[in-house]
Amino acid sequence: MQYYPESVRSLIKNFGKLPGIGEKTAERLAIHVLKRPSSEAEQLANSLVTVKQKVRLCSQCFALSDCKLCHICRNSNRDSGLLCVVEQPADMISIEKSGAFNGLYHVLGGALSPVDGVGPEDIRLRELFAKVLQAGIKELVLATGTNVEGESTAAYIAKELSGCKARITRIATGVPVGGDLKYVDKMTLKSAMSSRYDIK
Amino acid sequence: MQYYPESVRSLIKNFGKLPGIGEKTAERLAIHVLKRPSSEAEQLANSLVTVKQKVRLCSQCFALSDCKLCHICRNSNRDSGLLCVVEQPADMISIEKSGAFNGLYHVLGGALSPVDGVGPEDIRLRELFAKVLQAGIKELVLATGTNVEGESTAAYIAKELSGCKARITRIATGVPVGGDLKYVDKMTLKSAMSSRYDIK
Repeated sequence: MQYYPESVRSLIKNFGKLPGIGEKTAERLAIHVLKRPSSEAEQLANSLVTVKQKVRLCSQCFALSDCKLCHICRNSNRDSGLLCVVEQPADMISIEKSGAFNGLYHVLGGALSPVDGVGPEDIRLRELFAKVLQAGIKELVLATGTNVEGESTAAYIAKELSGCKARITRIATGVPVGGDLKYVDKMTLKSAMSSRYDIK
Repeated sequence: MQYYPESVRSLIKNFGKLPGIGEKTAERLAIHVLKRPSSEAEQLANSLVTVKQKVRLCSQCFALSDCKLCHICRNSNRDSGLLCVVEQPADMISIEKSGAFNGLYHVLGGALSPVDGVGPEDIRLRELFAKVLQAGIKELVLATGTNVEGESTAAYIAKELSGCKARITRIATGVPVGGDLKYVDKMTLKSAMSSRYDIK
């Protein structure tokens, strides 16, 4: 590091703060930036600043958005009677990529975790309950994680909304598609076995 | 990609232009930037812009520098009678890291390569010859690469300077230290064998 000019050292240090970028990689990235035209470095610099200025949470579903309402909440072709509950914006993007869902989302911003001090007031449950009671939601799909926190969050939501008219469903657990049984952990296999269904 | 807001997409695209950063990693880096405070994104953005504005080539050795003269050429403790010729600034930094050299450098900016149309006029040979003839250089260490281009560049320099008083040396080739003989390529072994020396 001390062999580089001060400005290069600073760039290496800042690249190194990114996840998965060690000092060697940071050095390589900095050397790359030095070799490429200024315009490329400026584009990256601008997009870094812009993203922090522009991105906020959609006022309706709390997903990442550049505007007040995200592109999914704005889209009138989506089924507003279907609401999918996820923990994080990234979960929503994974579901969107699968193309398996055409309703709207509600991003909780976390999962209940008494161990970490995350209670019902710390995630967007109040907003979710208000939404389910007010709007004409026909089905609420609970797509929180399949770990302890995600499961208990789903259970909590189902219990709190047990009196409402909407159908409440949970995404299925089981062996991943294309999965090799010998590499699947026993909890997943247990779940896949107990959720077995008739094929004839 | 289309599932992200425009500003996030732009950041992912720009991260993806860096070497070794695929779309998945670029996504992960962008999400990390979104989670961290704005100050971190700004620091990286600033260092990107600063590095392109500040870094230039040292007017004496042509290494990367923030000033007219790099920290090595400015350092009066270095032996100015020793001059090491390398192809690229990165080669110089590798030698500096080894701590095995206390002289000055001359960065050629490439190696002779008739196939790629790189002739003696295209790399900083004129500046090197002027330096060797004028200054009191006692030894010129040729540390160009050990590939065809590097070897022919070293041979060309040695031939052109055959009449000068300075000692001209070439870095040794051989088995890397800590190397396992069974993984060493045959050209390296050939070289190590022909350069064998008496140990008693």
